[in-house]
Parts: sequence; structure tokens; C-alpha cells
Amino acid sequence: MEEFARSDLAAECGGEREGEGIRVRKSESGGCRILQVQVRSSEAAKRIGKPEGCYVTLDCGNIRMLEENEFDRVRCALSVEIREMAERMCGKRVGGQFSVLVAGLGNAEITADAIGPETVRRMAVTRHLRRLDHALFSTVGLCEISALVPGVLGQTGLETVELVRGAVKAASPDLVVAVDALASRSVERLATTVQLSDTGIHPGSGIGNSRKALNAETVGVPVMALGVPTVVDSSTLVYDALRRAGYEPQYFSGELHQALKEGKNFFVSPKEIDLLVSSVAVLLAGALEKAFTVRDGEFS
Amino acid sequence: MEEFARSDLAAECGGEREGEGIRVRKSESGGCRILQVQVRSSEAAKRIGKPEGCYVTLDCGNIRMLEENEFDRVRCALSVEIREMAERMCGKRVGGQFSVLVAGLGNAEITADAIGPETVRRMAVTRHLRRLDHALFSTVGLCEISALVPGVLGQTGLETVELVRGAVKAASPDLVVAVDALASRSVERLATTVQLSDTGIHPGSGIGNSRKALNAETVGVPVMALGVPTVVDSSTLVYDALRRAGYEPQYFSGELHQALKEGKNFFVSPKEIDLLVSSVAVLLAGALEKAFTVRDGEFS
Amino acid sequence: MEEFARSDLAAECGGEREGEGIRVRKSESGGCRILQVQVRSSEAAKRIGKPEGCYVTLDCGNIRMLEENEFDRVRCALSVEIREMAERMCGKRVGGQFSVLVAGLGNAEITADAIGPETVRRMAVTRHLRRLDHALFSTVGLCEISALVPGVLGQTGLETVELVRGAVKAASPDLVVAVDALASRSVERLATTVQLSDTGIHPGSGIGNSRKALNAETVGVPVMALGVPTVVDSSTLVYDALRRAGYEPQYFSGELHQALKEGKNFFVSPKEIDLLVSSVAVLLAGALEKAFTVRDGEFS
Amino acid sequence: MEEFARSDLAAECGGEREGEGIRVRKSESGGCRILQVQVRSSEAAKRIGKPEGCYVTLDCGNIRMLEENEFDRVRCALSVEIREMAERMCGKRVGGQFSVLVAGLGNAEITADAIGPETVRRMAVTRHLRRLDHALFSTVGLCEISALVPGVLGQTGLETVELVRGAVKAASPDLVVAVDALASRSVERLATTVQLSDTGIHPGSGIGNSRKALNAETVGVPVMALGVPTVVDSSTLVYDALRRAGYEPQYFSGELHQALKEGKNFFVSPKEIDLLVSSVAVLLAGALEKAFTVRDGEFS
Repeated sequence: MEEFARSDLAAECGGEREGEGIRVRKSESGGCRILQVQVRSSEAAKRIGKPEGCYVTLDCGNIRMLEENEFDRVRCALSVEIREMAERMCGKRVGGQFSVLVAGLGNAEITADAIGPETVRRMAVTRHLRRLDHALFSTVGLCEISALVPGVLGQTGLETVELVRGAVKAASPDLVVAVDALASRSVERLATTVQLSDTGIHPGSGIGNSRKALNAETVGVPVMALGVPTVVDSSTLVYDALRRAGYEPQYFSGELHQALKEGKNFFVSPKEIDLLVSSVAVLLAGALEKAFTVRDGEFS
Repeated sequence: MEEFARSDLAAECGGEREGEGIRVRKSESGGCRILQVQVRSSEAAKRIGKPEGCYVTLDCGNIRMLEENEFDRVRCALSVEIREMAERMCGKRVGGQFSVLVAGLGNAEITADAIGPETVRRMAVTRHLRRLDHALFSTVGLCEISALVPGVLGQTGLETVELVRGAVKAASPDLVVAVDALASRSVERLATTVQLSDTGIHPGSGIGNSRKALNAETVGVPVMALGVPTVVDSSTLVYDALRRAGYEPQYFSGELHQALKEGKNFFVSPKEIDLLVSSVAVLLAGALEKAFTVRDGEFS
Repeated sequence: MEEFARSDLAAECGGEREGEGIRVRKSESGGCRILQVQVRSSEAAKRIGKPEGCYVTLDCGNIRMLEENEFDRVRCALSVEIREMAERMCGKRVGGQFSVLVAGLGNAEITADAIGPETVRRMAVTRHLRRLDHALFSTVGLCEISALVPGVLGQTGLETVELVRGAVKAASPDLVVAVDALASRSVERLATTVQLSDTGIHPGSGIGNSRKALNAETVGVPVMALGVPTVVDSSTLVYDALRRAGYEPQYFSGELHQALKEGKNFFVSPKEIDLLVSSVAVLLAGALEKAFTVRDGEFS
Repeated sequence: MEEFARSDLAAECGGEREGEGIRVRKSESGGCRILQVQVRSSEAAKRIGKPEGCYVTLDCGNIRMLEENEFDRVRCALSVEIREMAERMCGKRVGGQFSVLVAGLGNAEITADAIGPETVRRMAVTRHLRRLDHALFSTVGLCEISALVPGVLGQTGLETVELVRGAVKAASPDLVVAVDALASRSVERLATTVQLSDTGIHPGSGIGNSRKALNAETVGVPVMALGVPTVVDSSTLVYDALRRAGYEPQYFSGELHQALKEGKNFFVSPKEIDLLVSSVAVLLAGALEKAFTVRDGEFS
């Protein structure tokens, strides 16, 4: 039924409602509505087309339009979610003994796809400082942060997972955070929602193709996925307009069905995508730095 | 009826069919289908929502996908159209006595809007060489080319027309060519069609707002408009899908009508807009240089 | 004697010492050493190779290395100098009746030369808001700010002064502020000094070539020049090293003299010029916005 | 003696003259003077401060200023040198069974350092096409090309060698080509010389620090270094001017000596570095693609 409407957001795929094998928890923080979806059975996973695991979305309004203090509050709220998920995934407290590798996925040459590279570009890494100033890590509790922009297959001839695996071997992190641009089903979500999940990255809807997935199995350490929707499938624009107009999908005529399906493989972005991506990258870089800067006994 | 479907292309607004006050001529050149539409009465202008004048579109397939030799042929065909229109508009042969000012309109910070600035960035100007090498112009027949990137109101606080007028005063050109990104009604047109017209630029559908228009009246010399569609109104995606599915606009229910209208003010671009814009700018810059490089007695 | 050492900074050309026709005043503000040099006779102007007028330099240490609070203090100190000079030049208080046009000079494609364009890119203009919200200007006392990036002769075929004159006609400002990259004689000055002056811009050392100057005479309103050194003449590196080593210029052998002169026409920048220019542009844009945001009765 | 004059070019370090353990061969091709220097003993290596191996430099004049046909000839000449060195290093003919990994070293955010990333950005990789079109490789003889932009330590927290090792494990290439910006001793060399060598990359003059070297020992396959000088140590400007003026280094006074040494750690580039780097990257990308596109029986 939702076949016209590809989405990388669990909250748009049926995950927003409690159900068999799906637990939903709502809260608020920093001016964001926060939705935590737990997909707990393989049936539920199949139903919503997303792997089992935990998905958290923060709805914060258009990131580009946030005032400076709103922006700071969203950044804090997001950093808390990131850190808590990181600690749950690794069974270990963030702090001087914690090491994280941030992988900025996507094509830096295509703005709508460049959230990963742009986020990494704005982050301060710390791993190489350990041998220069050991106390920063041991006393203050700074995490070891390293980062990678692996590029895409068409640019490198190499699978992302192969490069991340190499970096994991080099940095021995406790956790990989894979930052990526997402597709949403609804135009209103673009640049207004952040999703993090403990499932890693599963190219192509999480079914099959596991060889190219980015997860604990393929890279050797847990992989958190962090992303913001920047593109929308053109057919979902049509579909959503029809729904809004009261049409029920099952009554769509064969021709309309066909027309919707034909439009499928083509993604669009708002005209101002350049400005959106820049704001989003500042937010994600800031939240990641904050999440992994200090904890242990909270430096005082 | 066409209210859901904003387009800057005369060929999409009813101009593609002969009619009262509208003359259409089709031809082919350099692998492009060329459509020349002449809007010859104010009634016809009102009917298609475009000012009286001559509109030429070249359909050349996706500009980014052209092979090198196809690209060259399109560039040549386009340069011929530009030059012929320039000579008609100015009543004067292109050559050593001809001076053209290229104005790259749009916002250079927003890729989908940056065709004008990107084209200018790739052009070689010549005006300042006249005093260094007068023979280039008098013997060889090189045109005087100057260029301007005026920016947009939100960046400069100045109306484009005011800045172009200043540059016209400085350069005293025979002709202004205003290069700009266009909106098309159909996704298939994006980066596949070039339109030139002798009507200048008319912000907001050519009706009213004449103070901000860029034409002979407001800047003092004839203004040719040259553009390529890079954005599409989101509501037209829906509208077109419905048409393709056999729905007739007049039967749209009130709710659908409303839904389409609500989507109106928001423009989308293909995800790969960065690559499209770069190819388009290379094409336009090349065609402009070729159009205004030599003619008179065709340098031998 | 100073022939090997081109500098756009009055403070490096003999202006740093009191003398016949030269008055010097030193102060401190916001952590900057401030030097005000007044060149008051044509003999003095000839001696230091700079036109008569007032030159203010702020030495603030490497702009890229400033901590956030230091940066803010420098920005404030600079905004005060800009505003005071603006009011002196125009005989008029900054505020709701004041209009300023910022011209970002230089070549945006060459990083070391891009301070002007990069500054303008980061500024918020206000002129176009007056008709939307008149009270902002009349009650609050916001100045009218407009901006222009004229490009360089090789890109446009047009003299900068011609384009600025056009923009002045359009915006009718009280003052033009021309922002530009400067050459300093000493590597230590690069990105550590801001100079403003009430003399406008005089291409090629202020002597001759007055046709291309940017000043009240050529554009019709007073022109403040605002800049930061980002390049240094390669021969000055040699010259300075020799001076530091105790050599006196008059004893330079003929061959050395020749070698120094041969290196003359070639400018160098620090390898990290990209990062320097970005910090400098943020500083200048911030100081300009602050200088021209409110005054009159100081909005309360 | 050469302590003031850091250079990455063997041809500037004494390698340009035959001597004990050093063999020099000169030739010409494609309008370039080609110098092949073989450093054949550890004494010779120590004397010139470069590891044993083979260094080839092509002098082609300012790369940015080459006419289109000159540019093509230089590209061809360079591709021949790259291919011959590759075959010598790997003991294997370039062709359908050959696999090369291009590593674009340096900091993409600092133009003068960005030759590696900019070259990779302009290359077409092929490795991922093998499973789609096996015949391209087996029949036509296309090499497998993959590429990597590892970033620098300050951006990633990871040593370059660690990331290259990971990519080598993923791609199993016969050869790594490491593309990097070089420092030359002489300003005249900037963007006019290409150097390739079979020694890999040795951070900091090739002595010590072998852990971070990029060579067969550290990454597991032979490493060719390919680079073009884009920066010059500021003290060499002074030193060279003095030499040109007839001063002999041994007579330098203590103060001059000191002054020269103080200037040491600071690199400069020509003001137009943006344009230089772009031309250089086009040249290197083109030569690499040509070198590794076909050979075996030379596809016919």
C-alpha cells in the first residue's frame, strides 16, 4: 500500500503507531517532539520495512529557520539522545575511555546528498591528540573522535563498507556513527526531523543486500545511523496530495497507479537545498561534538 | 485551467500550437528540435500568459548526458539562434561594431538558481581588450562582450534592473542578454530545453510589475532572455501525474483542487541539480561566446 | 628606498611616525592597538606614497586565532571606528536616515583576493526592507544597507568604478564602503591588521590613474576604504630578512638590488589563506553590520 | 648547506647532477624536458636527503598557461612516464589484469594543499564496473581504477597510512599512486614541474618517521608518488635572491643566517593558487586516466 512512498524514517512507515511488535514512546525536550519507536519482532520489521531495532526521531521545525537559542536547545536535546543511544549500544559510558568514528556518507558533490561529508567537515576530531595530551582524555574525560568521508562507489570504485572497515581497523572505535541524508515521504519533513537508530545503514530498504550494510556484522563494531531527510521521492508528492484530497489508495485507477509508479525513481529537493544542508550540518556536527565531549563523572 | 502549472516556457503555455495571434514554426538543427513561437497580439499574450514577442526553444535531450560531439552540435545550433535573434533585435550585424552585455541573473548561493552567475563565470569577456588591441575588433570582427552578476534583492538590497541599468550606462552595449534559471511545468523539461526570447525578463508571469522588468523600456537597450528550466513547481508534479492518468482538470474535486493549490509556492529540483547546472552553464557560456565572437564578413 | 616594499598600509609607509604634515595618534580598544595617521599635506602624501586623508589601523593579532570573546571585542572596536569615520566623512549621524553601500572589491575566484566578495556574502542588507517595514528605519534607527560585488575587469570587461557609480545612482547612499584585500610589506601583518581610511581606493599607489579611483570625485559620494592584508610582495620577504639581519638598504650590492627588483611583481600568501580569508570576512561583515545597525539616539 | 631550502623535488636537491651513486638521464617529450634521476646508494640518498629510488621530473612551463594542444601533449608525455614506471614497479603490464588505487593526499580545504583531492575528484574510476561489464576489462584491456581521498590527520584523527592500508585491503590493487602537493625551493618551479617517483611518500624529508611513510612496506603494495609543487618555503625566497645576487652561503653573516632560519616554517603560494591548482588537477587526472586505460596488446 505504501509502495509509492519510500521513506527512510521509521516514523513515516507505520512505526508511529503502537502495534504487534512495535513499541512507541513520546516525549518532549529542547522544543522538539521526540518519538522513540522500537521494532521488536521480525514480523513487525517486515511490516514497516525497517530492520528490528530502536528509532528515535526529533521534530524540531525547519532547522534553517531556528533562532539561535532554539538551535542551541535542539542541539542539546539531540546530543542527549545520541549519547544515551551510544551508551546503550556499547554497554559503556561515554568519556575518556570511549572512542567513536564518525562516517560522513554520501556524495559531497551533490548538495542534497552531502549531509554526511558536510557534517564531518565541521567537526573537531580528537583521536590524534591523545599522544600529545593524554590528560585531556584521562582526567577531563574527552572521548576519542575520529572521522571519515568515504565517498560513494561511483567516485571511488570501492564499497563504503570496505572503507569504513579499514578505518575501524585503524581507529578501533567502540562505535561508528554513520551520518547520511535521508529520503522522507513528506515534503513537510525535509530538514525538520532528525532520526537516529541503532540499526546501522541498510542500503535499499533494509531487505537483502546485507553484504553492503553498515552494521556490527559487517564492520565489527556497533553502527548508529544519524540522518536528516533532504530528498523526497517525486511520486510521494502526488500520492500525498491525493490522500490530502480524500482519495483512498485502494480506489486509485489503474492509470493513476501506473503514473505514480513511473515517477518513482526520481528524487527532488527544495530549491533552497544549499542553505538547508548547511544548517543541518552545523546542527549535527555540534550535537555530535557535544555528545562525545565529556561524561564519565561529568567533568567539573 | 493551467493555474496549477507555472511555466516560464512559452512552449508549455499553449504557445506550442498555432492559433489566433500565435504563429509556430518547427525545425531541426544540431540534433535539436527547434520551436519558434511568435506571439503577435495582446489577446494571444494574455491567453498564454506571456508578453508579445518571439520565443525559441531548443530541445536537445538531457544536457548533462550529451556526448562531447552532440554537445558541440547543440552549442553551434544554439549560437546560431542567439546570433540571429540578436541581429533581428538590434537591426545590426554581429561583428566588430557590436557590443553585448551578459547579465547573469539569480542567486549564486542556491544551485538551482545559479545558471546565470555560473554561465558568466565561464565566459571570456572582451570589452576591456579594445584599447589594448584594437585590431581584434576592427579587423577580425570580435564583438565587445561585457558581463555582470547583479545578485538578487535579498543579497544586495538593490533591484536587478537598477544594477543592469548602471552597467548599460557604463558599457553602452547594443544588446543585453539576461541569462536566468527557468521554471518548467514538466519534470521532463528540466535541463533538456533552452529558451531564448526577445521579450526581456518579466518577473511574475509578465503581467504588471513592469517597473522591475528588464527590457528596452527599463534599461534602454533591447534585452534578450536566455534560460534553461531547473526547477518545477511541486503542484505541477501532481497535476501532470493526474493528466497522464487520464483525469481531466475540470473534474477535479474541490479537495484535490485545494490540495494542488496549497502545494503551489514551493519549487523542487532533481537531486543531481549541482551536476545539471554545471553542464548547462558550460553550454550557455560556449554558445554565447561563439555567437558573439566573429561575424561581419565571417573572418577568414 | 622603500621601493622593494609595496604596501597598502599607511602604517608601513612612514605613516607610523609623526612628521611634517603627518599626525599620529595611538590608542587601545577591544584588545587592539589602534593607530590613527593623518596625512595633511601633499608633500607628506608624496613622501609616504599615499593620498592625503585619515588612516586608521587596528592591530588585533591573527584574526583566525582569536578566541570567541576576543573576536567579539575586536568586532566592537572596529565597528566603533567605522561608524565614527562614517559620521565624520558624511557630516551626518548614523541611524534611520543614513544609507550605506558596501562594495566588495576583488576577484571572488582567487581566495587571497576575495575578502570583499566574501564579506558581502556574509552581510545582511536592509535597503529593500524599507517599503515593507518603514518603522524599522524611522523608529528603531536601522540604517539602509545595500551591497554590490562588482567583480574585476578581467571577468566583466567593465571598470569597477563604472559599476559602483551605477549602484550609487540606484541606491543614493550617503557613503560607499569599499572592502578589499590589501598588500602588506610584512608577513607578520597578514590577517592581523584592519585598515580603514577616508581616502577611497586608488589603484596603483595613489598616484595617477585617477580615472579608475573610487572616491567622492568619481562616484559622487564619499568612499571609505576597508581592508585587511592577505598578500605580500615576494621581494619584501627578502628585503625584510636582510633588514632584520642588520643590512642597510643603501649598502646593497648592485646584484642584490637587481635580484630584489626582479622578484617584485609577484604576490604570495600563506598556505592557509583559505582559512584566513574566511575568518576575516566574518569579522568585517560583523563589524559593518554593527556599525550601521542603530545609532541616532541609540535605540533603547 | 641547503638547510634553508626545503624541496620535495630530487631535481632541486643535488639530484640534477651525476655523481657517486646518482645517475641522471635527460630527454624530451611532448614539449617537456624530462629528467630521470636514479639514487642508487644510501650515501647518495643521505647526500641529497631523498630515499633511494627513481625520480622523474617533467618541466612543461606554467601548466595554467599551456595552450590546449600543448596541454594534450604534456598529458600524453606524462601518461607514458606514469605507465612505464608503474610497469617497472609492478613487473607487470598495464591492462585488463592491472589494478591501481589513486590516493589523493592533502587537505581539500586548503587550496595549495588540495592537488590530491582535486585530482581524484576529476578522475573516472572503473573498479566497480567489472561485475557489470567484465568484457571492458578482459577484452578491451581497461585497468581497474579505484580512488580514495583520505583527508589529513587534523580532519580525521587517523593517519593517512592507516586509511590507505584499509583501501588496499579492499581493492587489492597492484599499485598505489599517491598524488600530493609538493614544496619546491624555487618559485619558478611552482606549477611548472611534475615529479613522479617509485619511492612512495616519506613525510618530513625521508629520514625517520618511517611508521607514517606510504610505501610497499607500510601498505603492502608498491607506492608511486606523483606531485606538483604549489608551495615554497618563505626562507628559500630570500636564500635564492641572495644566491642570484652572487652571495655564497658560507659567507652569510650570523644574523642573516638567523633571519633565514627564522623564516623557515612558513609556506607561501602565488596569489593565483586557486587557478593553478585547478589546471594541475585536470592535467594529473587526465594523465592518470590515459596511463591506466588500455595497454596489454594496445586495444585496436
